[in-house]
Amino acid sequence: MLRGITKAGLGQIKDDKRFIELAAEFGFQSVDLDAKSFIDEYGLAGAKDILQENGIEIGAIGLPVEWRQTTDIFSEGLGDLVATAKAAAELGCKRCCTYILPSTDLKAARLMSLAVKRLRICSDVLSAYGIRLGLEYVGPHHLRKTWKNPFIWSQDETLELIDAIGLSNVGLLLDSYHWYTTGLTSKDLVKLKENQIVHVHINDAYNLPTEKLKDNDRLYTGEGVIDLSLFLQSIKQTGYSGPVAQEVLTPSMPTQPVEELFRRSKLGFDKVFSQI
Amino acid sequence: MLRGITKAGLGQIKDDKRFIELAAEFGFQSVDLDAKSFIDEYGLAGAKDILQENGIEIGAIGLPVEWRQTTDIFSEGLGDLVATAKAAAELGCKRCCTYILPSTDLKAARLMSLAVKRLRICSDVLSAYGIRLGLEYVGPHHLRKTWKNPFIWSQDETLELIDAIGLSNVGLLLDSYHWYTTGLTSKDLVKLKENQIVHVHINDAYNLPTEKLKDNDRLYTGEGVIDLSLFLQSIKQTGYSGPVAQEVLTPSMPTQPVEELFRRSKLGFDKVFSQI
Amino acid sequence: MLRGITKAGLGQIKDDKRFIELAAEFGFQSVDLDAKSFIDEYGLAGAKDILQENGIEIGAIGLPVEWRQTTDIFSEGLGDLVATAKAAAELGCKRCCTYILPSTDLKAARLMSLAVKRLRICSDVLSAYGIRLGLEYVGPHHLRKTWKNPFIWSQDETLELIDAIGLSNVGLLLDSYHWYTTGLTSKDLVKLKENQIVHVHINDAYNLPTEKLKDNDRLYTGEGVIDLSLFLQSIKQTGYSGPVAQEVLTPSMPTQPVEELFRRSKLGFDKVFSQI
Amino acid sequence: MLRGITKAGLGQIKDDKRFIELAAEFGFQSVDLDAKSFIDEYGLAGAKDILQENGIEIGAIGLPVEWRQTTDIFSEGLGDLVATAKAAAELGCKRCCTYILPSTDLKAARLMSLAVKRLRICSDVLSAYGIRLGLEYVGPHHLRKTWKNPFIWSQDETLELIDAIGLSNVGLLLDSYHWYTTGLTSKDLVKLKENQIVHVHINDAYNLPTEKLKDNDRLYTGEGVIDLSLFLQSIKQTGYSGPVAQEVLTPSMPTQPVEELFRRSKLGFDKVFSQI
Repeated sequence: MLRGITKAGLGQIKDDKRFIELAAEFGFQSVDLDAKSFIDEYGLAGAKDILQENGIEIGAIGLPVEWRQTTDIFSEGLGDLVATAKAAAELGCKRCCTYILPSTDLKAARLMSLAVKRLRICSDVLSAYGIRLGLEYVGPHHLRKTWKNPFIWSQDETLELIDAIGLSNVGLLLDSYHWYTTGLTSKDLVKLKENQIVHVHINDAYNLPTEKLKDNDRLYTGEGVIDLSLFLQSIKQTGYSGPVAQEVLTPSMPTQPVEELFRRSKLGFDKVFSQI
Repeated sequence: MLRGITKAGLGQIKDDKRFIELAAEFGFQSVDLDAKSFIDEYGLAGAKDILQENGIEIGAIGLPVEWRQTTDIFSEGLGDLVATAKAAAELGCKRCCTYILPSTDLKAARLMSLAVKRLRICSDVLSAYGIRLGLEYVGPHHLRKTWKNPFIWSQDETLELIDAIGLSNVGLLLDSYHWYTTGLTSKDLVKLKENQIVHVHINDAYNLPTEKLKDNDRLYTGEGVIDLSLFLQSIKQTGYSGPVAQEVLTPSMPTQPVEELFRRSKLGFDKVFSQI
Repeated sequence: MLRGITKAGLGQIKDDKRFIELAAEFGFQSVDLDAKSFIDEYGLAGAKDILQENGIEIGAIGLPVEWRQTTDIFSEGLGDLVATAKAAAELGCKRCCTYILPSTDLKAARLMSLAVKRLRICSDVLSAYGIRLGLEYVGPHHLRKTWKNPFIWSQDETLELIDAIGLSNVGLLLDSYHWYTTGLTSKDLVKLKENQIVHVHINDAYNLPTEKLKDNDRLYTGEGVIDLSLFLQSIKQTGYSGPVAQEVLTPSMPTQPVEELFRRSKLGFDKVFSQI
Repeated sequence: MLRGITKAGLGQIKDDKRFIELAAEFGFQSVDLDAKSFIDEYGLAGAKDILQENGIEIGAIGLPVEWRQTTDIFSEGLGDLVATAKAAAELGCKRCCTYILPSTDLKAARLMSLAVKRLRICSDVLSAYGIRLGLEYVGPHHLRKTWKNPFIWSQDETLELIDAIGLSNVGLLLDSYHWYTTGLTSKDLVKLKENQIVHVHINDAYNLPTEKLKDNDRLYTGEGVIDLSLFLQSIKQTGYSGPVAQEVLTPSMPTQPVEELFRRSKLGFDKVFSQI
């Protein structure tokens, strides 16, 4: 598995070049970023050079399509999807991810049929570029009532959605926070097949009852109470060998210098990875 | 469009042969019945003879698969599906139908992803026999709260489900009672394409507020307040030329003699069809 | 059915605006053109105005994706597909078409599996814009040996491909020249369901044995030996009510003035349509 | 990976019970057999007991559907598919396999579109029982001209077919003989993802030019010239951990006693497995 990093929780990083240099400096092997804007900024050759010089690969891109609202908003995003998928493929990135909110103002059944149809279209487009789609379920309990109707938030429900989409390039994005807040164990991870896992997020939780944990108030890797070594060890058992990318959502922008935040992140990874 | 009939509301009919003879006698052109048990009873040649001698075709069969519960119960039904589809195809029947209850004890989003997956499998099997799958939304308001969570009950939601299934042999079963109780108009019918309609049910409603109408307390065609001529005329405009089958659900078995019930049904059809 | 026209066989038309004005002047109701370049030239509002002022709708756009070659060339075209589909949808056009050459330098079986996969992706994208994909089989015999391996050229084989793609928004583009050169009859058309027909091309053939007819040497509607009234009458029986667009492929650019060519086309349509 | 065995090349084995006992006696861990007839013979409880007492699992069943001929023959087989899939699932078997002949009397392109459609239906049905479908390409050169038109015979072409089917439960059956006769190397195996491999066959080849090797004249594992340790080692690198089942097709029934043939098979496996 690769030590990966996203920008979440790292403060104000100057630009993608600096992000990648810092990632390399602190021992990370992959970064999640917007492949298209990265190429727009540095050119394709320039972008490739920056990655190669720093020994960094791109872990995953985000799905640039809003699939939860109207048909018009959805189809509006397909142009971005094609452009982003092309950019990702040019940089060797094979993963694209989106998250599923646990409640919705739409009728839940309706959102599900829309989700199946629209995510199938997205997966089909991504497959033309050799890219897989990772679906992230979202565990924190408060979000189950943020909107009117409960949607889905468990790993099993997400696997059912993946089944309904039916295409072979769709799988899970596993996030330690969501694994923890939905009360899953090692068993729930080791039963997965390697190809059911598209991407992995890592971060930590405060010592609170799981039902009190807030989605946007997470801790850095290794600084909280989640058994992250068990989380990773279990995922490793499936055969997964891709990126494990830290994503620390915080209520406000961290005030420590960026380098300091990278150092904390590295320490956490050292601690957690040393035990697997 | 063909004058069609189901057994619902016709009392205790001796057997399928008598059902078909009576249908013919009272001017009907198609019957809905269980193609497999019909062949089991009379043999394939015998069943064909009965249909031919009476000038009757089979309008639709029911989907013999329970797709709303566990995976085991679902897959258990696939053997029946294949046998039934084969029987229907042998008798020239091209339609298979199932209904969607408006509420569910499962989480609504979960049931929808299961429905998409399972109904896709059923459609795929049916397509091997040249049979289409018709999905019937169910309008009566009381059923929206009969189980814990609201599911879907409108034509538009059902079209979204059909879209999510994605295969070309899936469409709607339109029932006048559900059309009426969901407050639809002619406009909602004429906007449909012919191939979006797999089958049609007809029956009538008491003069009560739509939200008071019970699913299992319907009237015979032409005896209630639904503008059935408008209903049929609008469907005809789409190009639909298949069966329109009476289905009268009643709280208890009607006590009139079967022949009398057929006569009432015929009178209703005469009235309604004369105006389109 | 609408009287439709493509630019093929009409000489050098100044621009899309003139094309549409001439179409209207000579009694046509729809034009096939590149919706995206039309909007690029006149702006969306301008393009809509031109259509509306002339009472013309857009019949179909061409599929801007090369699906017969490498994966890279295919995925390269997806950006154009999204942009073109969006443009078409904005102008109310619901049809996108591509043709299938009857032979190929690839192994035939390989090209077919690539075709199914890639045309499914295209159909899926088009479905997000409410657009259907029409597949045109190509009849002239000489093309069956133009490339190394025979592919498909019959209506039945194309229906099997449509079945393999499996999505509900894919159907046939019927062209009178291909219908004639593959020896089909009225019966082959009337057996189609309305939704199996996405678009129709019309043009005529020299009085030669069908196996001698060249794909790029066709006659104007009504000037040759094809029974075009029978062709249209049979299509009409299916319930098809969309455009019938003239497409006259010729070995060299016609030398008559554009207006004269439109007049000939109109005369042909008058003759053929008067008999259906 | 499990030491697996099929009946091919083992002479006349008395019955399934004896087959399983011998497999266990000679160190095999899985057998390929017809799950349905096995249950029909011994009852479900009896069949389970025989497997359990001998520590044997069922590796794979054969697809009981003829998908290469007419629609009627195909749909006729779906009943068997459901019954067989149910039997396999009841015995814990998760793999169903079929082979693809390298030439065909049908037009190659036609057979491919039929294959995609029909194998998708089969995969969909199998998915309802948690069973995957493995497709076996067939390498021996003579079969490429046995029927009129070349079809597909390479791993890459088979992966393209799998892509066209599009469902996530379809993958390859890898057979050492086909790997060898199509001139593949270790590289072609290690590039596969674990989930692209459903099942593995093993057997050996005479020391002849690959283009002379006959499909039905194979050698026992380890008795020929194929580098079977490399074959298995390469497959192992993908993460595959399922059965590797010997399948020795011979021009006539072997005359050695069954026990002797099992012993030879065991020796071959010992030799080949000791080097991975």
